[in-house]
Amino acid sequence: MDLMTVIGLLGGIATIYYVLVDGNILHLLVNPVAFVLVFGGTFSATLIAYPWSTLKHIFSASRLMFVGRRYSEDDRQQLIEQMVLLAEKARLKGVEALLRDIEQIKDPFFAYSMQMVVDGLEHDVIRDNMEKRLLYTHQHNHKINGVFRTMATFSPIFGLLGTLIGVVQVLRNLSDPSSMGAAMAIAITTTFYGIFAANFLFLPTAIKLGDLNENETLRQEIMAEAVLCISRGDLPIMVRKKLNVFLISYLRGHEGAPAQR
Amino acid sequence: MDLMTVIGLLGGIATIYYVLVDGNILHLLVNPVAFVLVFGGTFSATLIAYPWSTLKHIFSASRLMFVGRRYSEDDRQQLIEQMVLLAEKARLKGVEALLRDIEQIKDPFFAYSMQMVVDGLEHDVIRDNMEKRLLYTHQHNHKINGVFRTMATFSPIFGLLGTLIGVVQVLRNLSDPSSMGAAMAIAITTTFYGIFAANFLFLPTAIKLGDLNENETLRQEIMAEAVLCISRGDLPIMVRKKLNVFLISYLRGHEGAPAQR
Amino acid sequence: MDLMTVIGLLGGIATIYYVLVDGNILHLLVNPVAFVLVFGGTFSATLIAYPWSTLKHIFSASRLMFVGRRYSEDDRQQLIEQMVLLAEKARLKGVEALLRDIEQIKDPFFAYSMQMVVDGLEHDVIRDNMEKRLLYTHQHNHKINGVFRTMATFSPIFGLLGTLIGVVQVLRNLSDPSSMGAAMAIAITTTFYGIFAANFLFLPTAIKLGDLNENETLRQEIMAEAVLCISRGDLPIMVRKKLNVFLISYLRGHEGAPAQR
Amino acid sequence: MDLMTVIGLLGGIATIYYVLVDGNILHLLVNPVAFVLVFGGTFSATLIAYPWSTLKHIFSASRLMFVGRRYSEDDRQQLIEQMVLLAEKARLKGVEALLRDIEQIKDPFFAYSMQMVVDGLEHDVIRDNMEKRLLYTHQHNHKINGVFRTMATFSPIFGLLGTLIGVVQVLRNLSDPSSMGAAMAIAITTTFYGIFAANFLFLPTAIKLGDLNENETLRQEIMAEAVLCISRGDLPIMVRKKLNVFLISYLRGHEGAPAQR
Amino acid sequence: MDLMTVIGLLGGIATIYYVLVDGNILHLLVNPVAFVLVFGGTFSATLIAYPWSTLKHIFSASRLMFVGRRYSEDDRQQLIEQMVLLAEKARLKGVEALLRDIEQIKDPFFAYSMQMVVDGLEHDVIRDNMEKRLLYTHQHNHKINGVFRTMATFSPIFGLLGTLIGVVQVLRNLSDPSSMGAAMAIAITTTFYGIFAANFLFLPTAIKLGDLNENETLRQEIMAEAVLCISRGDLPIMVRKKLNVFLISYLRGHEGAPAQR
Repeated sequence: MDLMTVIGLLGGIATIYYVLVDGNILHLLVNPVAFVLVFGGTFSATLIAYPWSTLKHIFSASRLMFVGRRYSEDDRQQLIEQMVLLAEKARLKGVEALLRDIEQIKDPFFAYSMQMVVDGLEHDVIRDNMEKRLLYTHQHNHKINGVFRTMATFSPIFGLLGTLIGVVQVLRNLSDPSSMGAAMAIAITTTFYGIFAANFLFLPTAIKLGDLNENETLRQEIMAEAVLCISRGDLPIMVRKKLNVFLISYLRGHEGAPAQR
Repeated sequence: MDLMTVIGLLGGIATIYYVLVDGNILHLLVNPVAFVLVFGGTFSATLIAYPWSTLKHIFSASRLMFVGRRYSEDDRQQLIEQMVLLAEKARLKGVEALLRDIEQIKDPFFAYSMQMVVDGLEHDVIRDNMEKRLLYTHQHNHKINGVFRTMATFSPIFGLLGTLIGVVQVLRNLSDPSSMGAAMAIAITTTFYGIFAANFLFLPTAIKLGDLNENETLRQEIMAEAVLCISRGDLPIMVRKKLNVFLISYLRGHEGAPAQR
Repeated sequence: MDLMTVIGLLGGIATIYYVLVDGNILHLLVNPVAFVLVFGGTFSATLIAYPWSTLKHIFSASRLMFVGRRYSEDDRQQLIEQMVLLAEKARLKGVEALLRDIEQIKDPFFAYSMQMVVDGLEHDVIRDNMEKRLLYTHQHNHKINGVFRTMATFSPIFGLLGTLIGVVQVLRNLSDPSSMGAAMAIAITTTFYGIFAANFLFLPTAIKLGDLNENETLRQEIMAEAVLCISRGDLPIMVRKKLNVFLISYLRGHEGAPAQR
Repeated sequence: MDLMTVIGLLGGIATIYYVLVDGNILHLLVNPVAFVLVFGGTFSATLIAYPWSTLKHIFSASRLMFVGRRYSEDDRQQLIEQMVLLAEKARLKGVEALLRDIEQIKDPFFAYSMQMVVDGLEHDVIRDNMEKRLLYTHQHNHKINGVFRTMATFSPIFGLLGTLIGVVQVLRNLSDPSSMGAAMAIAITTTFYGIFAANFLFLPTAIKLGDLNENETLRQEIMAEAVLCISRGDLPIMVRKKLNVFLISYLRGHEGAPAQR
Repeated sequence: MDLMTVIGLLGGIATIYYVLVDGNILHLLVNPVAFVLVFGGTFSATLIAYPWSTLKHIFSASRLMFVGRRYSEDDRQQLIEQMVLLAEKARLKGVEALLRDIEQIKDPFFAYSMQMVVDGLEHDVIRDNMEKRLLYTHQHNHKINGVFRTMATFSPIFGLLGTLIGVVQVLRNLSDPSSMGAAMAIAITTTFYGIFAANFLFLPTAIKLGDLNENETLRQEIMAEAVLCISRGDLPIMVRKKLNVFLISYLRGHEGAPAQR
């Protein structure tokens, strides 16, 4: 459960609520016409811009905002330990002995990569395949990400369009002050919806998905490096040294004291 | 038939129609002067900016918005199967035996590339030629794409120019309220046209064409990799392993269960 | 003669003329103060930003907008035929026999490159020199291009400054309505000039010059590849295969029919 | 202590104070509703956009603004002298003799890298590990940096939202002039807060953190180059020559007088 | 003496002066409060954003705007001739014979590089060192450049803040028209200062410094190439061929006439 997303959303709603109540204009917040214009316009333009094969991923991507698994420094440390153990076993009993362990790690990328080692593929072919796989996954995620960035571009523009329409209505009804209220409401509320949607929904989603993807990529890079070590038959102590590079906090532990290690 | 483009356009028109009818200002939507200013201005500036050799492609590119063939994950899977079969045949009967099969695949890039293999060109020359070809096709498509992006930049600016002209007319006719209506109409409608053209026509077209090109490029990369495998005489099982890397969904099937494959 | 530039400019002027006449505000179009502010400001800022050694090129670059030679697909096809013939002659009679032919092609880059082959320079040195030459030409053209982009950035800002000055004058003369006309004229006309200059003159020029440079670069890359082939002594059939890669339309001719070639 | 940050902040506050006092509108500066809207909105959107694992670093990053250690040209010169001494000792007594010296330098990156040399790892492995480490540190810092840039994007937008809300309140209370004051206050103060936060807090912080990171990276690159020299067993005079390249001011000392060195 | 900077500045001042006099609002130009707000704000924010070690270079960088030495095509031609002569001498009498000549060229980068040749360093080490030196000089100059770009971003924003403050004062004093003048003056003059500073001072400075750096880099690349040729012992005719690549105008001289050279 990604608490930050929930706290951020609640915080944002509380902020808006407080300001609107203080200004005594809470009733302006709900306006179906403004809603149709901003979200109808944004989604229609997005439908034209992206094929269904891309759009269908945005639902599961949105879900990631709340349940996205983020691997911490500790998780990476633990992963590195697992990898070192596997490298040790591979040297003692051969890579075939790893088959059962691979199943336990339950990561499709690692399973796929280790299977290539077990199948006896050449070192270079394994590296090429893993690199391509990392690249294509990255490009795929980047595309999904781009949908949210595009929506963050469209929504304030439709908000602006709503303001424009509201201003026209106000000007047309200058002689009839009683209808000015509704016109003003559309003008203000569409801009409000446009800014809110872009800055509380679409843009933060794009940023957080990008962060999640980077986080996942870092984990896959650790596994890829480990697979290459195992394929080459590196010594376990060497594997640990090579993988520790991926830990941001690694250097902190032994500041100025490398000899005591 | 690209349903998303049609649904998006209809959705966009319905959104605008609903909002204008609700605001009782539907009659403002049609204004020939605003139309001339926004589209005349945008197309004139585009004509100055791009040569005819580039502009002539935008008609067929626009057509792609509705009929553009998009290769799905299944299509790619099927293509990989075809390629593996060809690789098998090539190993058994030699590359010359593939000539008839190449004709059936009906893809000019694949035909061109396989012909190089049949002609006995060196592996490196084949790879270089295919890479250059992919690069030039990409650059060409990117340029066509850029025309739509440029138009998406120009059209809101001409909308703004229209608003400016409308404001001048309003100010000039402050003493004659009856003529204010027409002036307001231009001011509003040009901005409206400018925003609509940029965000419903030009920008989504540029984005979707980019997506179509990426999709087509991915397919050509699969074929290029297959041609290289065939040229090298790789084992069919190896060819499949190498090509499966291009399938985004490939890893999902055997999560944590690589040994049972 | 680049017809597109002329048609675009005439179309742009016709559009503006029609809209201004329709709005009955054609007389606002000519305002010397606005002209001095927008163009004086833009050119002064550009003079500070770029040295004369760069600025002196913008006149010949502007000329290219009307007379710029653009090499079509057919021109490239013809160039490739010439190159294949030269490669054939070089294999039969030696590279020295090409001296007279080089003169006929009348291209300084090709002459320079072939001279290196005739002089017997090493293959790698020839390639390095041609690559550097292409790179420096590209950088030089990119810099000229940047001047127009910079002017497209400056001119709307000086338009805005004019609007600001106009607004001040209006506010200062609220009590004297008769002088408001001139103040409004500056406010509107400077913005108009700024937008027009940026979007009809500077930005399209920058884009079209970029396109012309790409077009010329593609031609030089064909010649560079041909020179390398001749220097290596490639077979003419190989030369054609390698150069055909540069033709965008090449694949269309034999869709699904490679065997009949 | 980073004096520039303190002077800049005091200068910024003095500037604002002087202008507000001169305009007699100092009382507008404090407005809790505007504060809640701009900072509540900005922080809420940031919470949605970034995970806690990233956000927790912004406190220590903010601290760096005041206490960030910046290595001057002299510090680098001194570091290079230390490194040359170490290289000399390593050649005379072997790398094992450096263990005690490493402890004195008190830099975790240097300790980590030298330990690899002492452990007898291969030259290429040491270089790869150090490069990856530099890359990951850079990416990590760049991400923290991005949080401040994102906040600099959000805060003026929430300022704009406040202005919008203020304008609505003004329009709603046109008949009740006494309440206009408070509405105006929100409109102005939120914009003010938004611009101030973006341009005095978030953007300068992002820029200065980037500069600090570059500065630290340059120092680590000097150490990495030195470690490679020691690992290769380069002559001390060579080490100095290679490391002097990193000193920007190095060339100034002997303009036109290289022979007297 | 860089005449363009002087002419541009005078042209800019003349333009502004003419427009203000024509509009009869020249007296608005001098306003100490606006000056404090725009320049105080811009410099304060810049102080927070950059450390002193970076900021101290902007004074000498500003001086370069007027006295910056720009190497023309002729200067480069002459430099190439010098280099060819040195290469000739090096082949005849050995690199040691160049020591006196190096002193005469009075360029620290060339002196530093040639000293490495005379000291007998390996070819690869010399190339690496020169590449790193060019890279670090470029990065250093780019950072100084960035300060001016940052100031060009800040100054219009503080102009906007001034307009905001001016508008508040106007609204507060609606009942007292006599004080509106001063309020308007701040509103207008700050925007004016902000735009002027960004577009006449900071942005052109950043652009011209970038151009100067490119120009200097091109010259250093010629020297670096020459040093590599001398280190390798290339024939003088070869050195000239390799260095001529750096002359943009080189190809023009012998269009279609390579054989007569």
